[in-house]
Amino acid sequence: MSKLVIVGTVAFDAIETPFGKTDKILGGAATYIGLAASQFNVDASVVSIVGGDFPQEYLDLLSNKNIDISGVEIIKEGKTFFWSGKYHNDMNTRDTLATELNVLADFNPVVPSDFKNAEVVMLGNLHPIVQLSVLDQMESKPKLAILDTMNFWMDCALEDLHNVIKRIDVITINDEEARQLTGEYSLVVAAQKIHEMGPKYVVIKKGEHGALLFHEDNVFYAPALPLKEVFDPTGAGDTFAGGFAGYLAKTGDISFENMKNAVIYGSTLASFCVEKFGTERMINLKSKEVHQRLQEFKNLTQFDIELT
Amino acid sequence: MSKLVIVGTVAFDAIETPFGKTDKILGGAATYIGLAASQFNVDASVVSIVGGDFPQEYLDLLSNKNIDISGVEIIKEGKTFFWSGKYHNDMNTRDTLATELNVLADFNPVVPSDFKNAEVVMLGNLHPIVQLSVLDQMESKPKLAILDTMNFWMDCALEDLHNVIKRIDVITINDEEARQLTGEYSLVVAAQKIHEMGPKYVVIKKGEHGALLFHEDNVFYAPALPLKEVFDPTGAGDTFAGGFAGYLAKTGDISFENMKNAVIYGSTLASFCVEKFGTERMINLKSKEVHQRLQEFKNLTQFDIELT
Repeated sequence: MSKLVIVGTVAFDAIETPFGKTDKILGGAATYIGLAASQFNVDASVVSIVGGDFPQEYLDLLSNKNIDISGVEIIKEGKTFFWSGKYHNDMNTRDTLATELNVLADFNPVVPSDFKNAEVVMLGNLHPIVQLSVLDQMESKPKLAILDTMNFWMDCALEDLHNVIKRIDVITINDEEARQLTGEYSLVVAAQKIHEMGPKYVVIKKGEHGALLFHEDNVFYAPALPLKEVFDPTGAGDTFAGGFAGYLAKTGDISFENMKNAVIYGSTLASFCVEKFGTERMINLKSKEVHQRLQEFKNLTQFDIELT
Repeated sequence: MSKLVIVGTVAFDAIETPFGKTDKILGGAATYIGLAASQFNVDASVVSIVGGDFPQEYLDLLSNKNIDISGVEIIKEGKTFFWSGKYHNDMNTRDTLATELNVLADFNPVVPSDFKNAEVVMLGNLHPIVQLSVLDQMESKPKLAILDTMNFWMDCALEDLHNVIKRIDVITINDEEARQLTGEYSLVVAAQKIHEMGPKYVVIKKGEHGALLFHEDNVFYAPALPLKEVFDPTGAGDTFAGGFAGYLAKTGDISFENMKNAVIYGSTLASFCVEKFGTERMINLKSKEVHQRLQEFKNLTQFDIELT
């Protein structure tokens, strides 16, 4: 089993969907990634920052999942990063109602010394300079560095983003962002162009339409599980990334064949995440449920045509 | 091997895409369905209507693929159905530039007597009353009746459409049409409501995002092959339906497990259709190429997670 470093936000979210709304609840990319990765009992550390207003019970919740939180800095006099959003009826688009950076504005991540030799590094969506500083702290080049990012950094920090993209092995990015980053409409061509920027593996997330994994001339497709209802999409992309990274950290096998399985685990965990508000479903998720849903993914995708 | 009756348009199309434009070329739902089904060497008959302006070479082309064309009525003094459309840059949307019904306005399909006992009937997109008249001509209830339709008939012939939906076994419909027909956004819920209208099997086509097959509580997903470029999407849905129907006619096995394979064959053939203008790619398609692409579909979707 490999060690896994996760950097990203640990935050408050307030969410509104057609099904209801929440007050400030636990959120943040690193939270979702950590909860997903914890399904694999890996040796994971979350590197983040919160304010004095962040409840101890949320930190305990992560600790109780065997996630190391020694890298979560607490700024007693500061306030925790807060995001608020409202989803439209189709659940595929949303309006951001509020983004309060608070302590995140001065975040200088510090990787705990025990994790500076981690084999897998998962860089959650943050300013690319912050992501780079985590890579720079690693004692040796990680076996696998995974990057998540978003269009916001393409708009306002593109050069920094390219500097981190150069140094990572896997990028996870959504379809519209892949198009924006490359100027290509075809996702196959976009993936090729992103390969040329550095990453050997490109994962393009298509929301309810699943995810594509590209490596050299190979491509693998993991559908999203067709659901009767999506209750709250918040955190689905991070949960996908956390499942992907967690499975690879657990198995230590970064072959393309094993990465296919990692993408399926990511999709499987993301399919739970959207069933309830925020992190609720992920916090209470049992391994037996995951196992059962993996079987559903098999039924959904596996066929038996004999090719002779 | 079962007999297959295909009813639908045999027509002229004029197509404009970002890659170029065509004059009047061979088109029509039954043409695409027939060409796809011919890959399986099934005993297929196309029931349609054309005008005196329709070139003999196009009819020969179908005959040379072993497609029975005795059910294609030729109205010497009439003109062939003509459709013209222009695709937008994203290739997912198009404007219809012209629709000239011509001889199609008075189409009374006549199923050749040799095919009135066909086990599989594929009702291509046409007025539901025309589709019903084909079902009524069958000597015995076919083993499998498959219906394709579109939003146009929901807008202007909904009651007739429901009458045909009641009597068929499989419906193929695109995602937006499934939503329109049921008033449900979730495709899982939409499929359930369509089940309740009659069909035991519901296939929802999502274009570049693949297709879903629903049966009772089971669901199967066939992706579209990710392509570097889509040259012309015309006929992709009909080619999918033709591959689906042709494979089921060839195997004679209408179990859910075998229908999964049929959906994969449909997606495989559709992935060729879009590579060139109109029917060009389908006319010259070799079985070796199909075989090779099926292997690509396996690589694209099959994974190996052991569930104990």
